[in-house]
Amino acid sequence: MGKHAWTTDPGETLRVGDGFRLSGVDPDATPGFDGGKKAGERLLAARREELGDLQERLFAGSRAGEAEGSVLLVLQAMDSAGKGGIVRHVVGGVDPQGVELASFGAPTTEELEHDFLWRVRKRLPRPGFIGVFDRSHYEDVLIGRVRELAPEDEIERRYGAINDFERGIAASGTRIVKVMLHISRDEQKQRLMERLDRPDKRWKYNPGDVDERRLWDQYMAAYQTVFDRTSVPDAPWHVVPADRKWYARLAVQELLIDALENLDPRWPAADFDVEEEKRRLADS
Amino acid sequence: MGKHAWTTDPGETLRVGDGFRLSGVDPDATPGFDGGKKAGERLLAARREELGDLQERLFAGSRAGEAEGSVLLVLQAMDSAGKGGIVRHVVGGVDPQGVELASFGAPTTEELEHDFLWRVRKRLPRPGFIGVFDRSHYEDVLIGRVRELAPEDEIERRYGAINDFERGIAASGTRIVKVMLHISRDEQKQRLMERLDRPDKRWKYNPGDVDERRLWDQYMAAYQTVFDRTSVPDAPWHVVPADRKWYARLAVQELLIDALENLDPRWPAADFDVEEEKRRLADS
Repeated sequence: MGKHAWTTDPGETLRVGDGFRLSGVDPDATPGFDGGKKAGERLLAARREELGDLQERLFAGSRAGEAEGSVLLVLQAMDSAGKGGIVRHVVGGVDPQGVELASFGAPTTEELEHDFLWRVRKRLPRPGFIGVFDRSHYEDVLIGRVRELAPEDEIERRYGAINDFERGIAASGTRIVKVMLHISRDEQKQRLMERLDRPDKRWKYNPGDVDERRLWDQYMAAYQTVFDRTSVPDAPWHVVPADRKWYARLAVQELLIDALENLDPRWPAADFDVEEEKRRLADS
Repeated sequence: MGKHAWTTDPGETLRVGDGFRLSGVDPDATPGFDGGKKAGERLLAARREELGDLQERLFAGSRAGEAEGSVLLVLQAMDSAGKGGIVRHVVGGVDPQGVELASFGAPTTEELEHDFLWRVRKRLPRPGFIGVFDRSHYEDVLIGRVRELAPEDEIERRYGAINDFERGIAASGTRIVKVMLHISRDEQKQRLMERLDRPDKRWKYNPGDVDERRLWDQYMAAYQTVFDRTSVPDAPWHVVPADRKWYARLAVQELLIDALENLDPRWPAADFDVEEEKRRLADS
């Protein structure tokens, strides 16, 4: 259960608390980790088993009707910050049967006819599952705010609505892990340029990415407001420096392990007579 | 692209063709593979990259609106034959964002009010995705037949309905990979006993498993009928010996790679002016 090269608990170090300033976070740093890329990659591989084991216990408990817990990982970031890599390299390490992924793009006409949380509620993880939101209801106070996609008073209303919503989820047994992957403007430029350069990456590029990039400072301000108003004890935010992909993956893996350890899932007891079943099986 | 230790193409070797007899298949064999467990596990790890690359191309093409293809892996087997291991160790090797898993248990009351294909149609993979059915519409002619869950003429009707259904899916661009994992009765007994012995495996055990096990011969006969009537050129069955888990995983991985290579997904062309975007990005 040791965290090896972690010198401080990433759950503490990266948590958004009182007085947090996004502008004070260095996207290139590796806070709390005493090692480089190689050590980080080794630890990521080593901790996969722990994560997988916890996930299986969680799943087992819910199948036996004994546990009601679930985990919800909310991923937010500017384009190219590495959400997909987290899904692939961190979440991809556990049994796919226990994971529910949801990507939230621009809302459809039908979705726009409902409250902004409508489409999100439908994708919450069932008990026993790890849910992953690739973007989320926070888009409605991020691009929603920057692009003025809703009236100002509606945007204002949403922060409180989000807190109420998440409080309800937490009360029903879901551990919410909110993560902003934080890259620098320069790193984003390099990554987008690489997408343009490589024919096998070009499909990930969207000309709209540059338009959003031009609004970088407005987005950072919108994130700061999100942190000020929605980093609450039941559902704190974590800002993960993400210029180094290996660090971001390692940190998110540790946050997930923490959330699962907190739920403390146990192998369920048999709801049948084990010795009797052994006899029946032996005779069959 | 070499198949290394494969001496024959598993797609050919394991395919159910004319005159196939399930009783002639040795569940402990490793047909077409010239190597043992170690070599098999090494090859599984090595081929993961090829599978992941093909999956990403398929996904990319569909995102760009250029391709309509998808792959549907149908997994059928007696209990404990290793369906879960295939999902975890083979399918788990590709990006979870490109996979759609569906498990079919006993039908709900609502599902029973509809035709047996109703619930299955709703879970077909979208273009660009790999869909995995953990059990499927074949249960309706397997347990359905053995347990007489429907009138005999309805069971008879279903074989033709399945062929029509799958022909339609294939025509719309889906490669259907149908796999029966074939374990021996003895191996099943050992695996179920292990589930009873180990507290961390007990949740997977169901007393009903022994009841089904007692009907082994009837199930094998029902499978034989499935093969006789639904192994068609557009959607052939493959019977994969599964007493050795490593072999079954390796074989299914190869079947998936074959299906994807057959679709031949290409990186999509940019639908924007790459040089112009490089200039816009550089200026931003």
